[in-house]
Amino acid sequence: MKNTLSAAVILIGNELLSGSIQDKNLAHIAKELEVRGIRVRETRIIPDIENEIVDAITHLRNKFDYVFTTGGIGPTHDDITSDSIAAAFGVENVVQRHVFKQIENRFKEKGIPFTKAAQRMAYAPQGANIIETKHSIIPGYQIENVFVMAGVPSIMRLMLEGVIECLETGLQIHNIAIHANVGEGEIAAELETVQLRYPDIDIGSYPQDKNSEFSDYRVIFVFKGTDLSELEQARNSVFRACQKHGFEAIKV
Amino acid sequence: MKNTLSAAVILIGNELLSGSIQDKNLAHIAKELEVRGIRVRETRIIPDIENEIVDAITHLRNKFDYVFTTGGIGPTHDDITSDSIAAAFGVENVVQRHVFKQIENRFKEKGIPFTKAAQRMAYAPQGANIIETKHSIIPGYQIENVFVMAGVPSIMRLMLEGVIECLETGLQIHNIAIHANVGEGEIAAELETVQLRYPDIDIGSYPQDKNSEFSDYRVIFVFKGTDLSELEQARNSVFRACQKHGFEAIKV
Repeated sequence: MKNTLSAAVILIGNELLSGSIQDKNLAHIAKELEVRGIRVRETRIIPDIENEIVDAITHLRNKFDYVFTTGGIGPTHDDITSDSIAAAFGVENVVQRHVFKQIENRFKEKGIPFTKAAQRMAYAPQGANIIETKHSIIPGYQIENVFVMAGVPSIMRLMLEGVIECLETGLQIHNIAIHANVGEGEIAAELETVQLRYPDIDIGSYPQDKNSEFSDYRVIFVFKGTDLSELEQARNSVFRACQKHGFEAIKV
Repeated sequence: MKNTLSAAVILIGNELLSGSIQDKNLAHIAKELEVRGIRVRETRIIPDIENEIVDAITHLRNKFDYVFTTGGIGPTHDDITSDSIAAAFGVENVVQRHVFKQIENRFKEKGIPFTKAAQRMAYAPQGANIIETKHSIIPGYQIENVFVMAGVPSIMRLMLEGVIECLETGLQIHNIAIHANVGEGEIAAELETVQLRYPDIDIGSYPQDKNSEFSDYRVIFVFKGTDLSELEQARNSVFRACQKHGFEAIKV
């Protein structure tokens, strides 16, 4: 029987750690994977430092089915992801002739000088499987269970389309929810009872800020799992508990 | 001489990993710390699973000066942060009498039942230093170099105000930038030369999406460090390189 698969995401870049740029890639990757039965179980945000990248890659690729990285594959001095991934696998970071030609031609068409720095974008670790991407001349690549993508969200999304074609899929994971005007503490006992009755489902309880972009209600209860009828049953139990206490609630 | 201090942030919660909720805490924490000379060097997003929390806490608190956690300290079954942090320190998670009384009184005023579940919010690991927070009845706490805060952004921000009072400060870190209409590859060689000339400064190069919220320019160059006059010199060198090539650029 098919099961769900596990994944880690590594977001590489000083700018994400310092708060000067807000990550937009994790949520997109997680949602795209989830409908394919692959669940993100850990995410790390790490700086552009080789041994940090090597450590994260080595640890996470042994722990999870897949690892996805974003960032650090451009042409500047702080783009060291491919060098670091090569180091993690004990191979050289080598020029990919076909990619080199492709970028060179595109730069020529556009009249942009194909500098030594820009040529670094044509490198990938020896043995990597280059993943051609429609609409993007810079490809992502795969090496064993690690998939390497750009940090710029529009480019990352193009690469992910190609990456997804290379993945085994698991049992699809579904999400259903209740939005309710309830203090978490007032419904916590019933929530726990339902969680114990349906151990294969993950029930999460997320209190919302007053000006939340997600809901006008005070709390969101999320029911996540692979069996839709179990999810419905669990949600109905919590919904009835809200009604019993007189709390306003809607199913979403 | 004062130096900068290092920190890690652990964002705890399944909802962040699955992309159903977008983190808003990291950027705020990182910026508040940076002006106090404390730099976030790693962030992990992990699920509500005790041994994952224990592993992350144990590893990161030995590696960095400070660790800050958000999430998992509410009243529901998936709020296991305090239990897990107690386990990481090999102590019990115990009721904090003063906090208990405080929450009990507030619930009484508001006419909300102070359930057994809600009472869990008055627990913290034995030996923790409770950090009283203006405007929030639920306090954050400190245990050795680990600071524990709520996940809801409005509450986290209140707690952080109290937490900051407990921190040693380092040498303030400054950020200045150039926004430029340049292909990264065309300026990469000059950028690297400047980086080599000023090894104490971090120079980052961040290409922007067309509809970026950060800039109308194609690339942002960020100069980060503790010595403002060095930062200015490095920025001027890159600015002149942009001008030399005829690229439109502004200092920010």
